[in-house]
Amino acid sequence: MKTLLEIADILKSKNCIYILTHQYPDGDTLGSAYALCRALQLIEKKCKVLCHDPIPSKFCFMNEYVKQEDFDPEYIISTDVADIKLLGEKLLIYSDKINMCIDHHMSNNSYADITFVDAMSAATAEIIYEIIQNMGMPIDEETASCLYVGISTDTGCFKYSNTTAKTHKIAYELINKNINLAKINSELFEKKSKEALSVEYMVYNTLEYFFRGKCAVIKLMQSMLNSAGISDNELEGIASIPRQIDGVKIGITIREKKSNLFKISVRTTEDINAIEICKIFGGGGHPRTGGCNIEGEFEEVKEKLLKTVKNKCGW
Amino acid sequence: MKTLLEIADILKSKNCIYILTHQYPDGDTLGSAYALCRALQLIEKKCKVLCHDPIPSKFCFMNEYVKQEDFDPEYIISTDVADIKLLGEKLLIYSDKINMCIDHHMSNNSYADITFVDAMSAATAEIIYEIIQNMGMPIDEETASCLYVGISTDTGCFKYSNTTAKTHKIAYELINKNINLAKINSELFEKKSKEALSVEYMVYNTLEYFFRGKCAVIKLMQSMLNSAGISDNELEGIASIPRQIDGVKIGITIREKKSNLFKISVRTTEDINAIEICKIFGGGGHPRTGGCNIEGEFEEVKEKLLKTVKNKCGW
Repeated sequence: MKTLLEIADILKSKNCIYILTHQYPDGDTLGSAYALCRALQLIEKKCKVLCHDPIPSKFCFMNEYVKQEDFDPEYIISTDVADIKLLGEKLLIYSDKINMCIDHHMSNNSYADITFVDAMSAATAEIIYEIIQNMGMPIDEETASCLYVGISTDTGCFKYSNTTAKTHKIAYELINKNINLAKINSELFEKKSKEALSVEYMVYNTLEYFFRGKCAVIKLMQSMLNSAGISDNELEGIASIPRQIDGVKIGITIREKKSNLFKISVRTTEDINAIEICKIFGGGGHPRTGGCNIEGEFEEVKEKLLKTVKNKCGW
Repeated sequence: MKTLLEIADILKSKNCIYILTHQYPDGDTLGSAYALCRALQLIEKKCKVLCHDPIPSKFCFMNEYVKQEDFDPEYIISTDVADIKLLGEKLLIYSDKINMCIDHHMSNNSYADITFVDAMSAATAEIIYEIIQNMGMPIDEETASCLYVGISTDTGCFKYSNTTAKTHKIAYELINKNINLAKINSELFEKKSKEALSVEYMVYNTLEYFFRGKCAVIKLMQSMLNSAGISDNELEGIASIPRQIDGVKIGITIREKKSNLFKISVRTTEDINAIEICKIFGGGGHPRTGGCNIEGEFEEVKEKLLKTVKNKCGW
């Protein structure tokens, strides 16, 4: 694998760069892409961010930190995209043209010409921070804000087990760039719409326990979203609900994406590897947080998951 | 006010020290007291922590970090106690004997011989960290764990508006002392008992909006706790529920302590001072989070609060 300095040098030598995020974008894929885009634009590179989906409203402020002009790409980078399929349909035209992938997913399957993966980083944004530093460039307030979005969202605001001393050290350095910390935190972690609250309420009602309370499953259906008048990507915290409960070692969230297609989030405690469960269904992720897609009816999907859990955990 | 170094020197010159926390103890009053107690015991001082209430179970691990022996006090310190009344009945025997108070509440009313208040600190534990450093002592893993408990709980795990760059810098330094970060975070911020979950559910059901959605009020009654089989101090997150909601500028939590006595938590957004509302009822706190006690029937207490909100905000 190349060093951070080599990655930085390559980036400095390129121009007309597209930066691709994963579909259903979260704070890390977006924060990483926008931070890198702004840093490259600050040294007069043509650069733009592309995403298959609309940007969730709480992340839209980052749009203002970059110029999004039209040009043909000479170099294509993906940030926080562990598998080429995760780009989403609209970006699949670039699938065999990715020159560089910067990621922190252990399950990354090296689809790019150059892959830089550091699975010890709590967020891809931590790596982007180090790359920008290795480029010898100052980090301005806007770049720092984007990086903070990536780092804070992927660590659940510094509470998940991927958080390290380094995470806090970088946060300290970013906050010192004068970012509006209170406002960003309030937007990302405090604000909840009445609609989101009512969906959470419905989801709590679907909570089921299995294997004597060691596994908890919640369900989020499109009909719930419709009745509350809210879209799926405004509901990031949902997947952390089931594992929170005392005694639960595996928390599973089954979200209906469309008829007969479910997106699964698996959150585990220390002794269980979420990747092992998700890869059975072609997914991946991190040891404590994994994801995959499964086709079928809800009950069928749930049974498949529970069978896999039973096998993997010997319950 | 004395400097941190002067405070450190005074502490080094004393022995047989009691450290008092406030009643209904939270992570900061306890983490500060235990950290200071351990630091003083490491230099062979007799020292103990006293609290009016039982220690909530998630904080009990700190008990093992200090020796709690019997002795008569020669010097009495309070940590994170803004007002002498907050010691609670059992500790009121010391109320005119407090030699030193270390606190971060702007509303502190200087009841001790020596008061050190730094309202810019996110937590009293930040101040204790600096005092221990000024004492020229190394901070061991156990002391660091207690300080981390104080800092992380008082900032809602680094998400509240009191969080600063310094907060993250101290967190970085504490985590480098090898504390079990993942375990502490999981205990403090992730784990939720089935009982707590069911009370939260009941509380959500009491949510009322006033002043066209700018004020939200929730109610927590003893009967809810009894029906779920849980005690009040296992439910710390409750008070942050109402202000989270989009558009809410004042979130009020009315908790029944006993018949006709309610403990009020007021959380506000930037433009409203929680202290201004709470001090009408003899309470205090921080600009964004205040508290007070009010006697009366629930509806009467609620009306008093809403009237005060109306007056103070001109709504």
